[in-house]
Amino acid sequence: MANPTACVLVIGNEVLSGRTQDANIRVIAQGLAAHGIVLREVRVIPDDAPVIIATVNAVRAAFDHVLTTGGIGPTHDDITSECIAAAFGVPWEPHPEAWARMEASYKPGEFNAARQRMATMPRGASLIDNPISTAPGFSIGNVHVMAGVPRIMAAMLGNLLPRLAGGPPIVQRAVHAQGLAEGAMAAGLAAIQARYPGLDLGSYPYYRSSGNGVAIVAKGADAAAAEAAIIEATALITSLGRAPVQGEPPAA
Amino acid sequence: MANPTACVLVIGNEVLSGRTQDANIRVIAQGLAAHGIVLREVRVIPDDAPVIIATVNAVRAAFDHVLTTGGIGPTHDDITSECIAAAFGVPWEPHPEAWARMEASYKPGEFNAARQRMATMPRGASLIDNPISTAPGFSIGNVHVMAGVPRIMAAMLGNLLPRLAGGPPIVQRAVHAQGLAEGAMAAGLAAIQARYPGLDLGSYPYYRSSGNGVAIVAKGADAAAAEAAIIEATALITSLGRAPVQGEPPAA
Repeated sequence: MANPTACVLVIGNEVLSGRTQDANIRVIAQGLAAHGIVLREVRVIPDDAPVIIATVNAVRAAFDHVLTTGGIGPTHDDITSECIAAAFGVPWEPHPEAWARMEASYKPGEFNAARQRMATMPRGASLIDNPISTAPGFSIGNVHVMAGVPRIMAAMLGNLLPRLAGGPPIVQRAVHAQGLAEGAMAAGLAAIQARYPGLDLGSYPYYRSSGNGVAIVAKGADAAAAEAAIIEATALITSLGRAPVQGEPPAA
Repeated sequence: MANPTACVLVIGNEVLSGRTQDANIRVIAQGLAAHGIVLREVRVIPDDAPVIIATVNAVRAAFDHVLTTGGIGPTHDDITSECIAAAFGVPWEPHPEAWARMEASYKPGEFNAARQRMATMPRGASLIDNPISTAPGFSIGNVHVMAGVPRIMAAMLGNLLPRLAGGPPIVQRAVHAQGLAEGAMAAGLAAIQARYPGLDLGSYPYYRSSGNGVAIVAKGADAAAAEAAIIEATALITSLGRAPVQGEPPAA
């Protein structure tokens, strides 16, 4: 069975302006991989309705799953939800269950028009629970709409993933060595890649206070093949006179 | 004069797999903003030739500038350069100046076929100097090709930006307040945005050990307007009984 594909849309001016360092892409990528879904593309786009609508329609046709982050709060720049409705050509209207949950979470009189927008969704949306701040995300078709605040996004992702069609988990195996030069091992590594066409074999230089080197990473749904490729890469490193160490290099 | 637009392409499986936390987007976004170029989109795509070629051709037609990171090393998974040549329909061939620089940087016999690939570029490319590890980036048309390793990328960006047509710097002004609720100020903030249509006025919740709150950020090429909008936002915060503090919230 082929692994399903996914695209992530990060919606918000704050990443494009450089104000905010995105912290969600990596979390989503790792969650999808563990669920056997291959993340094939990420797009970061602004809070601009025509851009959001056109992008959602392009990527929902091209990938099995689309996950969005950002733009579902109560302020004027939170336009993701209404744009998703426009992309699907359905009404944007109060969602009874979301409305009930949110109304119950505010004091009388505080569930104002801005907050009611967070309970307004494309017709046919199914909720993604938000255990942290109540306002739910939602799914419509193959598009899954989550908050941008990292801890809320992570909670929503945990609720969403079990509902998505997945596949065999994507595993990664790695070996690294200090003093290794990519240019010296490139031919040998290409030969290994050629023997394992179903894997992605990557080569990543690292720079650490403890020393510089290169990590070789094999990624794919076939864990045995990934392990075999890393055994070959380990032998290649040894043949070049460097000392291979299994796994990823130290974090710092 | 309108500010030119840009798109960043992050090319590499390692961000999509969740192995690597991207560290380049924010640096590029801030550099472009200071140079008066508006970053309108980021796409993260895999080391897959048809995807790279199609994406480069889509975005170079849609934006004034395209900046790429990643995929210009010596290993088999570094295919950005040849894909850019294919996208432009020009030969991929040794670049005499890049070749000379790189050959001079290796001991005799070590400038092997893998390393020669790093001196092979689309015909007509102009070099982006790499003061750290010699192998240059390059520009062709409105596409600017840089390394993915953050410290090399940053050095290349510094050499590239002065060559790009820019505009008035994009400035940001901010005010924040603990205990502020987005839903309580949304209507007032929307009214301020309506009075400054040339600005992007954003609202961003933050969560700190010192307390939670909301930051309001005004962004645009008109610094006076950004300051005026933040003065109005400051008054709005005061009217809601919270204590406004100028600037961004503390980092932690």
